Amino acid sequence: MNVPNLGTPQFVSPLKNTVRDDIRIPEHIEVGSDSGLHFELAGPRSQLFFDPGNTRAAIVTCGGLCPGLNNVIRSLFLELHYGYAVKEVTGFRGGYSGLDPLKGMEPVTLTPAFVDDIHQKGGTELGSSRGPVDIEVAVRNLMNRKINILFTVGGDGTQRGANALYAEAMRQGYPLSVVGVPKTIDNDIGFVSRTFGYLTAVEEACRVLECAHIEARSVPRGVGLVKLMGRHAGFITAGATIACQDVNFAIIPEVPLRLENFLDALKDRMDRRSHALIAIAEGAGQDLLKADEKIRDASGNIKLKDIGLFLREKIETFFQTAGAPIVMRYFDPSYQIRSRPANSEDGLLCDLFARHAVHAAMAGKTGVVIGFLHDRFIHIPIELLAGRVKRLDPAGQWWRSVLAATGQTV
Amino acid sequence: MNVPNLGTPQFVSPLKNTVRDDIRIPEHIEVGSDSGLHFELAGPRSQLFFDPGNTRAAIVTCGGLCPGLNNVIRSLFLELHYGYAVKEVTGFRGGYSGLDPLKGMEPVTLTPAFVDDIHQKGGTELGSSRGPVDIEVAVRNLMNRKINILFTVGGDGTQRGANALYAEAMRQGYPLSVVGVPKTIDNDIGFVSRTFGYLTAVEEACRVLECAHIEARSVPRGVGLVKLMGRHAGFITAGATIACQDVNFAIIPEVPLRLENFLDALKDRMDRRSHALIAIAEGAGQDLLKADEKIRDASGNIKLKDIGLFLREKIETFFQTAGAPIVMRYFDPSYQIRSRPANSEDGLLCDLFARHAVHAAMAGKTGVVIGFLHDRFIHIPIELLAGRVKRLDPAGQWWRSVLAATGQTV
Amino acid sequence: MNVPNLGTPQFVSPLKNTVRDDIRIPEHIEVGSDSGLHFELAGPRSQLFFDPGNTRAAIVTCGGLCPGLNNVIRSLFLELHYGYAVKEVTGFRGGYSGLDPLKGMEPVTLTPAFVDDIHQKGGTELGSSRGPVDIEVAVRNLMNRKINILFTVGGDGTQRGANALYAEAMRQGYPLSVVGVPKTIDNDIGFVSRTFGYLTAVEEACRVLECAHIEARSVPRGVGLVKLMGRHAGFITAGATIACQDVNFAIIPEVPLRLENFLDALKDRMDRRSHALIAIAEGAGQDLLKADEKIRDASGNIKLKDIGLFLREKIETFFQTAGAPIVMRYFDPSYQIRSRPANSEDGLLCDLFARHAVHAAMAGKTGVVIGFLHDRFIHIPIELLAGRVKRLDPAGQWWRSVLAATGQTV
Amino acid sequence: MNVPNLGTPQFVSPLKNTVRDDIRIPEHIEVGSDSGLHFELAGPRSQLFFDPGNTRAAIVTCGGLCPGLNNVIRSLFLELHYGYAVKEVTGFRGGYSGLDPLKGMEPVTLTPAFVDDIHQKGGTELGSSRGPVDIEVAVRNLMNRKINILFTVGGDGTQRGANALYAEAMRQGYPLSVVGVPKTIDNDIGFVSRTFGYLTAVEEACRVLECAHIEARSVPRGVGLVKLMGRHAGFITAGATIACQDVNFAIIPEVPLRLENFLDALKDRMDRRSHALIAIAEGAGQDLLKADEKIRDASGNIKLKDIGLFLREKIETFFQTAGAPIVMRYFDPSYQIRSRPANSEDGLLCDLFARHAVHAAMAGKTGVVIGFLHDRFIHIPIELLAGRVKRLDPAGQWWRSVLAATGQTV
Repeated sequence: MNVPNLGTPQFVSPLKNTVRDDIRIPEHIEVGSDSGLHFELAGPRSQLFFDPGNTRAAIVTCGGLCPGLNNVIRSLFLELHYGYAVKEVTGFRGGYSGLDPLKGMEPVTLTPAFVDDIHQKGGTELGSSRGPVDIEVAVRNLMNRKINILFTVGGDGTQRGANALYAEAMRQGYPLSVVGVPKTIDNDIGFVSRTFGYLTAVEEACRVLECAHIEARSVPRGVGLVKLMGRHAGFITAGATIACQDVNFAIIPEVPLRLENFLDALKDRMDRRSHALIAIAEGAGQDLLKADEKIRDASGNIKLKDIGLFLREKIETFFQTAGAPIVMRYFDPSYQIRSRPANSEDGLLCDLFARHAVHAAMAGKTGVVIGFLHDRFIHIPIELLAGRVKRLDPAGQWWRSVLAATGQTV
Repeated sequence: MNVPNLGTPQFVSPLKNTVRDDIRIPEHIEVGSDSGLHFELAGPRSQLFFDPGNTRAAIVTCGGLCPGLNNVIRSLFLELHYGYAVKEVTGFRGGYSGLDPLKGMEPVTLTPAFVDDIHQKGGTELGSSRGPVDIEVAVRNLMNRKINILFTVGGDGTQRGANALYAEAMRQGYPLSVVGVPKTIDNDIGFVSRTFGYLTAVEEACRVLECAHIEARSVPRGVGLVKLMGRHAGFITAGATIACQDVNFAIIPEVPLRLENFLDALKDRMDRRSHALIAIAEGAGQDLLKADEKIRDASGNIKLKDIGLFLREKIETFFQTAGAPIVMRYFDPSYQIRSRPANSEDGLLCDLFARHAVHAAMAGKTGVVIGFLHDRFIHIPIELLAGRVKRLDPAGQWWRSVLAATGQTV
Repeated sequence: MNVPNLGTPQFVSPLKNTVRDDIRIPEHIEVGSDSGLHFELAGPRSQLFFDPGNTRAAIVTCGGLCPGLNNVIRSLFLELHYGYAVKEVTGFRGGYSGLDPLKGMEPVTLTPAFVDDIHQKGGTELGSSRGPVDIEVAVRNLMNRKINILFTVGGDGTQRGANALYAEAMRQGYPLSVVGVPKTIDNDIGFVSRTFGYLTAVEEACRVLECAHIEARSVPRGVGLVKLMGRHAGFITAGATIACQDVNFAIIPEVPLRLENFLDALKDRMDRRSHALIAIAEGAGQDLLKADEKIRDASGNIKLKDIGLFLREKIETFFQTAGAPIVMRYFDPSYQIRSRPANSEDGLLCDLFARHAVHAAMAGKTGVVIGFLHDRFIHIPIELLAGRVKRLDPAGQWWRSVLAATGQTV
Repeated sequence: MNVPNLGTPQFVSPLKNTVRDDIRIPEHIEVGSDSGLHFELAGPRSQLFFDPGNTRAAIVTCGGLCPGLNNVIRSLFLELHYGYAVKEVTGFRGGYSGLDPLKGMEPVTLTPAFVDDIHQKGGTELGSSRGPVDIEVAVRNLMNRKINILFTVGGDGTQRGANALYAEAMRQGYPLSVVGVPKTIDNDIGFVSRTFGYLTAVEEACRVLECAHIEARSVPRGVGLVKLMGRHAGFITAGATIACQDVNFAIIPEVPLRLENFLDALKDRMDRRSHALIAIAEGAGQDLLKADEKIRDASGNIKLKDIGLFLREKIETFFQTAGAPIVMRYFDPSYQIRSRPANSEDGLLCDLFARHAVHAAMAGKTGVVIGFLHDRFIHIPIELLAGRVKRLDPAGQWWRSVLAATGQTV
């Protein structure tokens, strides 16, 4: 599968050990599977589209916080500055709104001093926001600033915007490379087996699950209920459940929540062991909430009703009615998880994502997002992301490990 | 003893709450001070009241969780078992209700294996609960079990109960030593300069404040609001504010919260810096909540209305009304703080508290709580605790450091 | 004040170093004690010696690293800048050598941006070094730069130098306030009950002891030997031993090491349990090393021979000779401990030490070090430090807890 | 590639979502590569070789410590006990020597209580040792104990032994399934893209590198030198270098160390920046040590001379001779790294490795090790491991990131 590109690269790269353009990574690797997509392998190319000394690049970070944003900013800059010696790297502030000169804050010119130790901090030094930008205004601004390359660090909505930016620039005949670095703490983007920030989230989620376990065990009939991130996918909940090994019930969007069965199983557990620990992904059991009215947030995501508070109330009422009240301890640690600095594994992953994004851009790829499939970094045309989401497979090894670790039968 | 100085000071200081030059702190404080109370120094005595080989001791942990409970259980047992070689140590389960044979779970006989690594875990391996026990029933149970010594690990209410247990045993002519180990994560017990668990709480609170700071800085007009523990005293809020150094407004029970002044000051801060971090103790601003009806929890503590949710709503409305809405990030991490294992400083403190409690009991002290004053462990008659609470002094060095660290003027 | 008791104690205690019943700790220690020294209470004074708007202050950090140096620099600056609004604060670089314009690096003018987040980092942003400076040259430099106040953050040697600086300035009729902030990770300075960095060192030492314990237990006949800091005092070794609870032998300078007795006791332990964990302070057992030649390092401290390597060799040989070889795991983590950032308790302590130093200086105190006694900050004339060192009392509660935690009989 | 197996599975598995035997994972997945091996996909099979209710399994852990050993023991037991309900699981103690009834300690019968919280601890609760066992004696012991399945958790040498055990049992006509879980903190086993414990090692290595960086920066002309694990492969050194981002020179076995070039580059760095941080894998530069005599340790590994101490001396001498001495800070943290508990990512990985090992054994696979290739768990015939080792590719993305992160030219 070829990715969009701006034309024939004609400048010799300063880097060694470059990668050929025609190597392909298949979507499915099980032998005999002959269908599916084939992706360009990411990596530095021997010929560049942009002449480094005359190239201006820019970075923008969008959407909710995620551990590793500063690592990505830093490694993008370092590869551009030291690896390719580009002319200038601009940091737009405050997410996409920073691309609009009337709405945004003044962008900052990145320097080695600016990025020095930002990878040790949570959040994003460039700031962020949700919501779109006027595409024409943004492209005009990029053109006025003579920016050749834009790195968009963000989730689904951000990359849809990135695609629109590249298309508009194309339409105006301006060779703008737009390369996305996929950001989703939920780990639910297609063709990316592990997104940066995800493992830090699992680690922090384990820390909270431990606390909830202690709380539940320390009182008579204690129930710990922890709501974790995961709008559409249960990867954080499942990963933390397997790593922590203290959860008794893991509930994820991919597996329907049968409330009555669940409450019966919980009652059985409480009768036998007198305490229980439940982890639930925020996107689980949405059908129970009868979310008739679909409300969208500023990024265009459907707003979820709060399954955590819903389940908390159902559990308390159920045991109250049954004449055997429980002591509920409820945890909603999302903000404390997503604002942490990246752990070392995510630090490593951020560096590799960022540098591959730079290689793609310098070679003139555009409308592309860096993916990570079968332990290889690849080029994914942004358009392909729309139709393909990643979900936890209820028949796969992860869910099997969750069931084994929890012993849950629902 | 005068120290060298350069001459007569002659300029007026801009600071408030200054200290006179002629106050003196003696090197040795054990003797001679003729005002105030004088406490027995804690420590092992040369003569014991109980014959170790014929002595049975018991431990009970009551009330809310606090880092270090397991360390206290462990060191109580080790000192009794290895230090004095007592006959048996019983652990009552589930707080005071465990003293009632009809209500409680079967007690456990403690062993080196039982306590082996419990100090590395949060919570209490003996379980806990709130609420009193029928004093007569409990004393009869202790007498039936031939228990000579009872260690009560808990807060105000627990120690009031301890006093009643000792008084009832006295009345019945049964020589029962009841020795309390003061437990309050809020650090608000009189004659105890630092309670175990407090420093772990400060450390964990700092971790949450860092997250809130990152969140507040990462969005346009972000406000981080963190509700911390402290029903009547602001020690956790003040300690974390000084240690973390990122808080802009610290609000504690000992300093009245003038809502309008606070909101004006917050607006000023937001106009200048566009983000803010607020730490508030749960017991602050209770007058604003018009808590006419005093509700008490199972331990007899007055239930507080939630100042965190109250302030959150006031702030959001204020800025909404002012036409400059903010992005609120609210944190309520109490359960994640109190369930942590003790850090090393608290581990050290727990060990010393516990062993001094054993020394007191073996010498026949009763109706007594272990205190910690001027870096010395002391014996405090439980009755004395009632009239004396510890509060943060708004004219003292800690509040001065808070004001300096935050720059707050309200 | 007597506490209730059950009657006359009549059985002999098996414990040593017991405490009499009639020792009393007064509630208020500020007055009346008629023996010993009396110290000025530290804190802001109503009258200042220096006119803030015309005052220049400077900071220098000397000697080995210690957690919290950056916190002290930061809070000194913030109190001077925001608290008193002094004209300028200079940071000398590279320790005392930075006071010599010919040897040192150019000093830096401190700003809020410079100190912004330095408290989250280990080490010292001003750099450090060992060794003295030419006193006359340094004073001339301070006079040329119109510096009125010098804060010296360092240990014994540093404060001796501070005293010489102040005396020389006096001799020249230049009113220079020199105020020391005592720095010793070993916690061995007189009149300072806890120095900053000490608790962080205990925490990190516990982490290493845990590793050594795991290593020793995981192989047949494993011995973990951990050399900790403590040139003359065993506070880190004792504190970590009590906090960690896994050590079997703690060896400190204040308690003579009888090698044969120790090896016999270790053999007994190995025969019974097959693994052992030993913590030894670097200054312990120096007599065994027959350190005839006293070598001094650049700060003038006597250089110690390495007791850790000595003991390691003795243990290995002993068991080899006995025909029952052990598997030795040796740990020397000093550099990994002292370079850590301050934990929250030390962060709190640093802030208070620093601000009290500023108050002292602004009031015109000089030749003085900030002390911390009975939970009060005090002023100590530097001259007084020379004759008074702090050592762990082998008859006191800490060593008692060490013996109880280890079960060691040597 | 078929793996050895004991015969036709004939028992129906209690598990759902099983995997077919004929799915293959290719060694090389780049499209067009037609050579290479194809591996069986791991996972539960629908038919079992062993009848669970009559099956006895055993576990042995061998060689040096590695984070995650206890997690593996725990998940092996839980899958056998709860997943398949086997009759009994035995834990052999003290490594392979535990298989010899004359040399080893009495094995332990594993229970849910035994494994309860062992995953939170470093080391191995079963103990370990280096060195082989008499194969015939061991197989006879296994036969006497009616053990059908043996899980061998260890490195190269251990798996060679595992193969011998399976072959000997075959020879005796005893259907013994031997399934290995590959253990190498160095991450250098073929067909395993990430071994458990590796990421924990990277995280801990980063912590030490941070300390070394602080030390090097805090003194004039400071050099931090950190020796990390990696006998034959530089994965820990490279991973930590990329994650930490403070290293100036990374030295690994796969890239020859040209001493003169290195020292010149270091001198250049010191002249420019006055401090430097070096990370070196223990197996780097072995040719420089002229290790004529090959000494082997008890596991049969070639003993390496110490490149860390060698390089330390060379650097000190070089700068001494050049008249510009440096201050050296040397770190050798291996024991502090390998004894840590697994972090959450390794916890997750351990669980998956262990459960896949159980699935393989229950289906009658033998002489097989669980691999992890392209994000899939696979079956590797042990014999295949011998000829295939994993090394860091100096032309690949990791080394490229190392060079970019360090800026090193040697």
